[in-house]
Amino acid sequence: MDILFVGDVVGSPGREMIKEYLPKLKKKYRPQLAIVNGENAAGGRGITESIYKQFLEAGANAVTLGNHAWDNKGIFEFIDQAKYLARPANFPEDVPGRGLIFVKINQIEVAIINLQGRTFMSPLDCPFKKVDELIVEAKKRTNIIFIDFHAEATSEMQAMGWYVDGRATAVIGTHTHVPTADNRVLPQGTAYMTDVGMTGPYDAILGMEKEAVLHKFLTALPTRFEVDKNGRKQLCACLITVDEKTGIAKSIKTILINDDQPFFIE
Amino acid sequence: MDILFVGDVVGSPGREMIKEYLPKLKKKYRPQLAIVNGENAAGGRGITESIYKQFLEAGANAVTLGNHAWDNKGIFEFIDQAKYLARPANFPEDVPGRGLIFVKINQIEVAIINLQGRTFMSPLDCPFKKVDELIVEAKKRTNIIFIDFHAEATSEMQAMGWYVDGRATAVIGTHTHVPTADNRVLPQGTAYMTDVGMTGPYDAILGMEKEAVLHKFLTALPTRFEVDKNGRKQLCACLITVDEKTGIAKSIKTILINDDQPFFIE
Amino acid sequence: MDILFVGDVVGSPGREMIKEYLPKLKKKYRPQLAIVNGENAAGGRGITESIYKQFLEAGANAVTLGNHAWDNKGIFEFIDQAKYLARPANFPEDVPGRGLIFVKINQIEVAIINLQGRTFMSPLDCPFKKVDELIVEAKKRTNIIFIDFHAEATSEMQAMGWYVDGRATAVIGTHTHVPTADNRVLPQGTAYMTDVGMTGPYDAILGMEKEAVLHKFLTALPTRFEVDKNGRKQLCACLITVDEKTGIAKSIKTILINDDQPFFIE
Amino acid sequence: MDILFVGDVVGSPGREMIKEYLPKLKKKYRPQLAIVNGENAAGGRGITESIYKQFLEAGANAVTLGNHAWDNKGIFEFIDQAKYLARPANFPEDVPGRGLIFVKINQIEVAIINLQGRTFMSPLDCPFKKVDELIVEAKKRTNIIFIDFHAEATSEMQAMGWYVDGRATAVIGTHTHVPTADNRVLPQGTAYMTDVGMTGPYDAILGMEKEAVLHKFLTALPTRFEVDKNGRKQLCACLITVDEKTGIAKSIKTILINDDQPFFIE
Ligand SMILES: [Fe+2]
Ligand SMILES: [Fe+2]
Ligand SMILES: [Fe+2]
Ligand SMILES: [Fe+2]
Ligand SMILES: [Fe+2]
Ligand SMILES: [Fe+2]
Ligand SMILES: [Fe+2]
Ligand SMILES: [Fe+2]
Repeated sequence: MDILFVGDVVGSPGREMIKEYLPKLKKKYRPQLAIVNGENAAGGRGITESIYKQFLEAGANAVTLGNHAWDNKGIFEFIDQAKYLARPANFPEDVPGRGLIFVKINQIEVAIINLQGRTFMSPLDCPFKKVDELIVEAKKRTNIIFIDFHAEATSEMQAMGWYVDGRATAVIGTHTHVPTADNRVLPQGTAYMTDVGMTGPYDAILGMEKEAVLHKFLTALPTRFEVDKNGRKQLCACLITVDEKTGIAKSIKTILINDDQPFFIE
Repeated sequence: MDILFVGDVVGSPGREMIKEYLPKLKKKYRPQLAIVNGENAAGGRGITESIYKQFLEAGANAVTLGNHAWDNKGIFEFIDQAKYLARPANFPEDVPGRGLIFVKINQIEVAIINLQGRTFMSPLDCPFKKVDELIVEAKKRTNIIFIDFHAEATSEMQAMGWYVDGRATAVIGTHTHVPTADNRVLPQGTAYMTDVGMTGPYDAILGMEKEAVLHKFLTALPTRFEVDKNGRKQLCACLITVDEKTGIAKSIKTILINDDQPFFIE
Repeated sequence: MDILFVGDVVGSPGREMIKEYLPKLKKKYRPQLAIVNGENAAGGRGITESIYKQFLEAGANAVTLGNHAWDNKGIFEFIDQAKYLARPANFPEDVPGRGLIFVKINQIEVAIINLQGRTFMSPLDCPFKKVDELIVEAKKRTNIIFIDFHAEATSEMQAMGWYVDGRATAVIGTHTHVPTADNRVLPQGTAYMTDVGMTGPYDAILGMEKEAVLHKFLTALPTRFEVDKNGRKQLCACLITVDEKTGIAKSIKTILINDDQPFFIE
Repeated sequence: MDILFVGDVVGSPGREMIKEYLPKLKKKYRPQLAIVNGENAAGGRGITESIYKQFLEAGANAVTLGNHAWDNKGIFEFIDQAKYLARPANFPEDVPGRGLIFVKINQIEVAIINLQGRTFMSPLDCPFKKVDELIVEAKKRTNIIFIDFHAEATSEMQAMGWYVDGRATAVIGTHTHVPTADNRVLPQGTAYMTDVGMTGPYDAILGMEKEAVLHKFLTALPTRFEVDKNGRKQLCACLITVDEKTGIAKSIKTILINDDQPFFIE
């Protein structure tokens, strides 16, 4: 089984990339499962129900979120009904939504877990304790467990990778919006990558107009950031090959689409 | 002109990689200039004079540092005499050492700047204001300006890249110890990469023994981290091709050496 | 000479306290100079020109700010014309407004400096280097130098107190919205107090509705905070007695007005 | 019933103050219960078994801790046997020690809870969720529940005060080392004070030699801080009067002993 995971979709440029390239990527790589991180899909801040449905229509089987999950207030209206939408599982217990979801593909069930880091981020429940719980819960139904760990610090990401090595199929980072070149299968069989990168503007800062972000760094004044809608675009993803029986990852490769590394049909 | 830059060398495993592979890399790629980030070279914390000299003997022309520059107290004894050692330039004015150094290679001068970020890091002077000053100073002697920006946040790294695009030859990140896959030449000709990655243990967390780091994340108890000396090793670097006259970068490629991506002579 | 300093005025409850009690406090204590921190005066976020003028009309001779200085966008329209309005001096150089202002009271000039801390706050220029500069500048005109140091960390506040002891008349903290009980004159004659406290709601959290702040702590969800307009109110201030010739402080006392410590005319 | 609570004892100067003044304070105020925060008692970093016993001998009935609990490695040897020693309850579950302890005074049981904040501090379990649990547990044995909330941010301290108002006897802050002037009984009967302050050096920065702390702020270089052993000393405490039957607080007053506010027998 192959799993395609596309990193943080930012605003309309990101959504356009999903619309155009997710079908092409599915055609080219034929993954059984496609997952998209959508925490920045609505103007850079959160997601709407309509965008969530667009992602499913474009070919995603599940959507994950992150610290921006709650920025678009509409989320509270639909998250509990959205079967294929996961938000970080280590938010406090009474928060809406789910952190562990299941998708069934040709009779094979896949567990998808979303977790959020705490280093340089807001206080939440321990993601390590939470992942222990969720892996036990997921294992009741399947060995294939995909984890989107939405974290800032490379130390916490790597710690999570080693912590679940052999217990999960993959731990892939999101949130920093920069793809890393450390994709590998850890010794016990967990596919790992510190960050899969983002999908959206290519000539921007984390997807936002660079002039505004620079203004902020240069003046320390509060500055409104907007998604950069005028420049070139990129898509960042990874493809994980999984042994369906054991849930062990066999390989993980990076997929980058941008002007410097154009997409082509092999 | 080609510039080879090797990321954060961590402890004795990192130093062994430099000793073994820096000569091989120089033989294979024939860079005119080799720079090594040595902020973690002495047991993960700082650098000694003897290690600094080992790096020069192994073929480095310059050594850069970062937030760990001062961890090994010996630094204060030799930094002012170490002509080819740069520490972050935006430390307060009266701090020892230099943030801008020059290396002459076959009659061609290259400026090397080390700066440190502030987001999720300690308070320092503004790296953006400082880089303006230092570029003006460097330009009096050369157009080839290499910047090691030692930063945590991807936003601050990308902001620096765009800020100096067309004014510097390269802005390469260090500090997160994870190589990124976003190496590119920005539109005005500055080579950019969010982080070049680290050199040292391959089965560790940022180079440190993973058991200790996991203990810290799981218990929140103070934990002493030691460099992992028993596992496999890696080296992370990049190679920048520069137009000598203009200082404009023509390309930047990533070099990774580890068990999953072994070194070979082409 | 006596200087009255009133801490962070929060929203309309704070402004009502100023309107009612600033005249009463001036009548009771007869300070030659009254200074008000107004960084939260407009709905908890920033200040407007009209509020600034209200403060002057109510008897303030100067208004200081803090990290919220820029939250109300109107500030950019009037700050450069507002002679008696000081914003943190250690913002980058090209930011509007002034960090050092002068007020003349009966032929005696008083320098007022506003600075912002960096520990647990945003990156800015060094407040210690900046205070050195500004004290030199102020001393050209007067020995009476009042400093509102807007800081989060008690370590940074105390460090500033000791750093300028004997060079400034007073270093009074703002920003935490809690009055401290450590008001004292340091050995070389600088009046010191870690935080003067806030002026506004008394049954709230830093002036904001407590239900919303608790919701945030309990759920980690983004939450809009509003000034609590329905409860009881408080005013926090201090009174510094100064030797006019030397600028040395002779005493500093705390003034708290709230339901538990009602105001009365002695 | 009166409860005396003495804030963070720092190093030998703090211990000397306890030895000298705890008996005097007990004689003067005749509290039924005395609690001391000892997280900095051993050289500013942690506590030893011998110091813990000294505190009990000097008249303390219980000792609380904070983020520095674990700095002196000896703690792991004796914490599980130390019946009257509480460490922050919201550390992960398997960490040694207890966060809720009971002391019996003349047939009356008092529950003592130690908790740690998360804002500007390390990631831990939620102190609000934890306090709910512990109050339920404590209420099985007593209505008198004293909480030492070891926190940095005034917002989190005030939030805790309001959160348990009417459910706990007192929520007193420690950690910032600065006594606040906001001691009050909240509307439902919980005594509250943002920080009780520290016990130890009076002419230092949080108890540490001021020259070293200033060096750190001025240079950003790593600096070793030592307890200031040569200057004047202070003690900070509060006294809470409690209705024994209901556990409701009737009053809370601040006790400060230092050269500016000398101790005297009324
Ligand atoms: Fe994101
Ligand atoms: Fe994010
Ligand atoms: Fe490093
Ligand atoms: Fe570093
Ligand atoms: Fe404020
Ligand atoms: Fe503030
Ligand atoms: Fe403490
Ligand atoms: Fe503490």
